[in-house]
Amino acid sequence: MLRIPSPSYSVTLRLSIVNKIGMFANIAMAISKAGGDLGAVDIIEAEKSKLVRDVTVNARDEDHEQEIISAIESIDEGVKVINVIDRTFGMHRGGKVEVRSKIPIQTPEDFSRVYTPGVGRICKDIYREPEHAYNYTIKGNSVAIVTDGTAVLGFGNLGPKAALPVMEGKAMIFKEFAGIDAFPLCLDTTDPEEIIKTVKFLAPTFGAVNLEDIAAPRCFEIEQRLMEELDIPIIHDDQHGTATVVLAGMINVGRLLRKDIRTFRYVVAGAGASAIATTKLLLSYGARDIVVCDRSGAIYEGRDSGMNSYKAAIARTTNPRGLKGPLSEVMAGANVFIGLSGPNVISIDNIARMAPDPIVFALANPDPEIAPEEAQSVARIMATGRSDYPNQVNNALTYPGIFRGLLDVRARGVNDEIRFAAARAIAYLLNDDELSEDNIIPSAFDRRVVNAVANAVIAAAKVTGVARK
Amino acid sequence: MLRIPSPSYSVTLRLSIVNKIGMFANIAMAISKAGGDLGAVDIIEAEKSKLVRDVTVNARDEDHEQEIISAIESIDEGVKVINVIDRTFGMHRGGKVEVRSKIPIQTPEDFSRVYTPGVGRICKDIYREPEHAYNYTIKGNSVAIVTDGTAVLGFGNLGPKAALPVMEGKAMIFKEFAGIDAFPLCLDTTDPEEIIKTVKFLAPTFGAVNLEDIAAPRCFEIEQRLMEELDIPIIHDDQHGTATVVLAGMINVGRLLRKDIRTFRYVVAGAGASAIATTKLLLSYGARDIVVCDRSGAIYEGRDSGMNSYKAAIARTTNPRGLKGPLSEVMAGANVFIGLSGPNVISIDNIARMAPDPIVFALANPDPEIAPEEAQSVARIMATGRSDYPNQVNNALTYPGIFRGLLDVRARGVNDEIRFAAARAIAYLLNDDELSEDNIIPSAFDRRVVNAVANAVIAAAKVTGVARK
Repeated sequence: MLRIPSPSYSVTLRLSIVNKIGMFANIAMAISKAGGDLGAVDIIEAEKSKLVRDVTVNARDEDHEQEIISAIESIDEGVKVINVIDRTFGMHRGGKVEVRSKIPIQTPEDFSRVYTPGVGRICKDIYREPEHAYNYTIKGNSVAIVTDGTAVLGFGNLGPKAALPVMEGKAMIFKEFAGIDAFPLCLDTTDPEEIIKTVKFLAPTFGAVNLEDIAAPRCFEIEQRLMEELDIPIIHDDQHGTATVVLAGMINVGRLLRKDIRTFRYVVAGAGASAIATTKLLLSYGARDIVVCDRSGAIYEGRDSGMNSYKAAIARTTNPRGLKGPLSEVMAGANVFIGLSGPNVISIDNIARMAPDPIVFALANPDPEIAPEEAQSVARIMATGRSDYPNQVNNALTYPGIFRGLLDVRARGVNDEIRFAAARAIAYLLNDDELSEDNIIPSAFDRRVVNAVANAVIAAAKVTGVARK
Repeated sequence: MLRIPSPSYSVTLRLSIVNKIGMFANIAMAISKAGGDLGAVDIIEAEKSKLVRDVTVNARDEDHEQEIISAIESIDEGVKVINVIDRTFGMHRGGKVEVRSKIPIQTPEDFSRVYTPGVGRICKDIYREPEHAYNYTIKGNSVAIVTDGTAVLGFGNLGPKAALPVMEGKAMIFKEFAGIDAFPLCLDTTDPEEIIKTVKFLAPTFGAVNLEDIAAPRCFEIEQRLMEELDIPIIHDDQHGTATVVLAGMINVGRLLRKDIRTFRYVVAGAGASAIATTKLLLSYGARDIVVCDRSGAIYEGRDSGMNSYKAAIARTTNPRGLKGPLSEVMAGANVFIGLSGPNVISIDNIARMAPDPIVFALANPDPEIAPEEAQSVARIMATGRSDYPNQVNNALTYPGIFRGLLDVRARGVNDEIRFAAARAIAYLLNDDELSEDNIIPSAFDRRVVNAVANAVIAAAKVTGVARK
């Protein structure tokens, strides 16, 4: 797939330019010839003889940034690159979140209420009634974002420090989208027992825990154990965020095609955290024919190679027709392909051999299982994880609202009914008239999403008995 | 000691008052007769026949609040208490800190820089150069405030949830005074090994750790081990905050009396975290004659009862004259009494038998070892931990500036030289003319303190080789 210039690779160049007609046209031309995408242009200093301008350019990658800079530098003596600021690095400098006081401390009287000695009264009150922690501390609105850094984005095990920028980004989204105070905690251990213990020790401060970017299959055990052993919701978002938003998309596929999605034949490519969780949620929702494929092809009961206990469990509950063989063969006759694997694992031909009206969710990030440009010619509905194509299946649609709702009812836990409710709330934000092949899911920037999801979660938490409030 | 009305016990009463002359005077009189301290009075609603006013009253304690309310209610038919808001509880409602994004996320372009896919570039950069976590994450400005809730203020083991309001208060002070992003983490374990492991696992996210309200003697081992095993500063503030500010006060005692404080005879009452740390810091500073007393009296080498390994170490390094016996006897002839124990453990008579110009730091909170009103008649210099008497020895003078300085140089650790530097910086904020018996230490609200301490810490960290930067 040809990469296009992107704001993720965006540099702001401070240029000193001799003040004569046509100079900026030369610069714009050089950027354009080098394949750069010219953005904002600001004048910083204007003298009679020269101008200083900040010119922002989107590039394809870091090498491309360098090519663009070289192209500008080689224009002629009239242009000098004074300074290069990588905009992405610039936005991360010093970290992206901060911890602020909600109340100013201006006088000794304030001090004596929020801190000693006044705070002692609050401590004693919570000691007598531990549930009052929800009233008088951050617990009622705080989420721990916990990772061990073993599955950072698509990069694998980068470790806890390198995972921190992602967790901070998630904390930003929690606050901006849902008003939640989330704090990133990147653990320097990959041992499941140690992670479980650490999260249990941390639990008093938090109203919920978001596990993030923990590699499969350890993530399953960690989440399961913590759900059993703690009295606050534990959500491994890589699993359930994706599962919930896939279900939301499928609900709208059903509405659009006027079909019962539980009767579809599904093929899931990938057997990692999100693939297994999506499979389980679809089963729980009522789907009966799902075949999960890993690198070795279809997972079936009795398969010997490349299995683990989680795949064995999947083998028992899926693949009712006992299919064997590679992904490309298993896809024949399927209604839905859900890709949660890697780039370019399916072809146009594979899609062409699916049942009529093939539905393709190619969700590998950043590069889907098949390029949307190719798949569009044969797929009835095509979705990806990317923001630059229609139908972005993005778990940012789910977690701000789900955690908002769970915190609002001081939930003890979370369950599939809550996830179904969230998926339906997302799906039904689009009315029948708005639904189309290119519009099966709302945008993550649709500000109605969080409230709709939170309200649905609150109702479902009450019905299923996990709401404290 | 007679308690006086305090802003920690402050209620705002919403009163509906018949609109006739003299009604408010009746209310003010009732409050005054009940011993309440009338504060702000606001008009909320004014009609012809009645007024609604919010009246804030400071009380001595919760029972006293009730007495005042009863006194108002019993005035006559013309006054009704509509609503009672406890101001202290009100300020804690919903928690006192929040986690905010430093950058707005308004467009998909912002999103793609601060989160996926752009954030991936930062992750890979930190993976290649782990020290870059200081540049591009919150690590460079973040402090974990860690407690197990075993020594919450003066109340003892209230557990992690009840400790949270104190830790949040501390986080507020870190931000307001020093711009530091501190997050409270109240651990649901009291096992030293588990606490040590948990803090080690949490370390990647933080630039420093503030241990807080962990009971002695476990706090000593936890701090010591973490200092050895982590490459960021670990400070148990109950120990070193107090020790540092006591030293600051003593430095100014020396300046005021023109004496070398290293030659003084000291008696320390208490053998908890702050008492042992203060003793050690004074020894490290050069003091040679300190006698530490616990409930069983002087600690000396060879004492059998009520010892532990930390007291045994103290016995070896203090009490050079081998004093035995109760606190009251040991105080005879001493120059300095430092109380880090409990209320009312010494008498005027004990002070009268000290050496000439007795110096009394009665720091037990909220009730000192002797009431300042009593001690003032015999002590040359009297200090307490309270804000309502002169010479408040408050560790809020130390930690914001110490952590600020340590973070600014990305310190690997902390040491006594850094503490001496901080103590000197606090002391010398008062010039010779400002120094007096009633003014040996600056106010915690003196905004110069943080910068002075931070700069001193930065210099000392560089000299002692713990600065990364």
